[in-house]
Amino acid sequence: MPRSDRKIAIVGLGLIGGSFFKAIREKGLAVTGIDKNDPVEVGDADLLIIALHPGLAIEWLKTYNKKIKPGAVVLDVCGVKSALCKAAEELEKDWTFLGGHPMAGKEVSGFENSSAALFEGASMILTPQTKEENEAAESLRPFFESLGFARVILTTPEKHDEMIAYTSQLCHILSNAYLRDELALKSKGFAGGSFRDLTRVGAPDPKLWTELFIMDREALLPIIDRFMERLSDFRSALEKKDEEAMRSQLREGTLMKEKLTSQKK
Amino acid sequence: MPRSDRKIAIVGLGLIGGSFFKAIREKGLAVTGIDKNDPVEVGDADLLIIALHPGLAIEWLKTYNKKIKPGAVVLDVCGVKSALCKAAEELEKDWTFLGGHPMAGKEVSGFENSSAALFEGASMILTPQTKEENEAAESLRPFFESLGFARVILTTPEKHDEMIAYTSQLCHILSNAYLRDELALKSKGFAGGSFRDLTRVGAPDPKLWTELFIMDREALLPIIDRFMERLSDFRSALEKKDEEAMRSQLREGTLMKEKLTSQKK
Repeated sequence: MPRSDRKIAIVGLGLIGGSFFKAIREKGLAVTGIDKNDPVEVGDADLLIIALHPGLAIEWLKTYNKKIKPGAVVLDVCGVKSALCKAAEELEKDWTFLGGHPMAGKEVSGFENSSAALFEGASMILTPQTKEENEAAESLRPFFESLGFARVILTTPEKHDEMIAYTSQLCHILSNAYLRDELALKSKGFAGGSFRDLTRVGAPDPKLWTELFIMDREALLPIIDRFMERLSDFRSALEKKDEEAMRSQLREGTLMKEKLTSQKK
Repeated sequence: MPRSDRKIAIVGLGLIGGSFFKAIREKGLAVTGIDKNDPVEVGDADLLIIALHPGLAIEWLKTYNKKIKPGAVVLDVCGVKSALCKAAEELEKDWTFLGGHPMAGKEVSGFENSSAALFEGASMILTPQTKEENEAAESLRPFFESLGFARVILTTPEKHDEMIAYTSQLCHILSNAYLRDELALKSKGFAGGSFRDLTRVGAPDPKLWTELFIMDREALLPIIDRFMERLSDFRSALEKKDEEAMRSQLREGTLMKEKLTSQKK
């Protein structure tokens, strides 16, 4: 799966759905974009990629469950997985659900910003939970690799949601909070690369990301708390002019970066 | 200044000093690197660039004050300006001090990482405080532009230190605190562009940056406090599942980004 006689369709042609659409096309495979409100062709698809906001994806699966082709694989690619996998599990269905999350994105949204090259070098996370879902995941591995993904990673929905809360969601929250300072609009001429990096993802789509944060709330809260504790430790060292404590905290970052770099090798 | 018959020398050939050295050389001007512990040639320089850590720069100016050529311009380029300008003001001297800060850098240090192109498109901030210093600043404007700086900005040391606390120092603090999480080393395969951006400046040189933070402590503390308040507001909205508050905070970031983008035009 998907052989060239298997039909691929995508619901939701935003940044992610659009990029899947373009990447699949570029590989010479046929792919159909399906109108999410009038999915007449849904019954034809052997691989159906759902690229909608998470709440809408759950609603969509409930509404069109019976229109999906028996035996099809339905891959959801939104940014949270526990809530989606749980919702799919609760459906009475004759198709296979597969939770997925391409670790790629941009600070802008919409089909107009989508790109066949978006997944180049990225990870594709899959969260199969049954034997059937595992087989679907394994069978799709070459497909994802052909779209440019550097690796396909299989994990649990819970592990995915915890890691993503840290590697992606917290970044967006910090960037957003950083940006909303009274000095931001006075920063012209005083800003270099670190300002540019820290503000890049500071304006995530409010509706989508509020949904993602709420659905990942249990994983996210303790991660925010740990961050606040570290920042508060730093603030208190600065307040007390405790230079040794400050240096030691900075050194911990150096050490962590070295470990991350050596992992990459 | 500097005409081709004026001599330029640099004390401190790390990332910034080295980049000045290479950029000046590339423009076909003569420039000498001076040994900070045995500055025999210091008396020849008409423009002396001090590219040392801030505490060391102050010590150096005190120690070699009387060896500096009368009438020379001494440009300090470290990342904090109030403390440096104050220390220079207190010296009995027959040369002109000028506080400066090139808004360019890298997450690595040392001459081996320096580059003639480092200042390309960056701002050069100058903090003259007297008529004499103002004249020196104005006379150096074409020199900085010839090194690739996009603009030369004149401001007060205090304004510089406040802006830099936000646009640079806070970024390094947040990046460092972000990096020091127990999940960082488990993030392989789960990390995309936002993780990469948020961790880039997370390992600043502990000795140098502790000095910078301490010297800019008064400006930095309220900026950290405002950030913590915004983050805490977000955390509390998430805790209470107050989606409207979350969306409204995210929207504020969108608005801020739009304003920043329109400022750039």
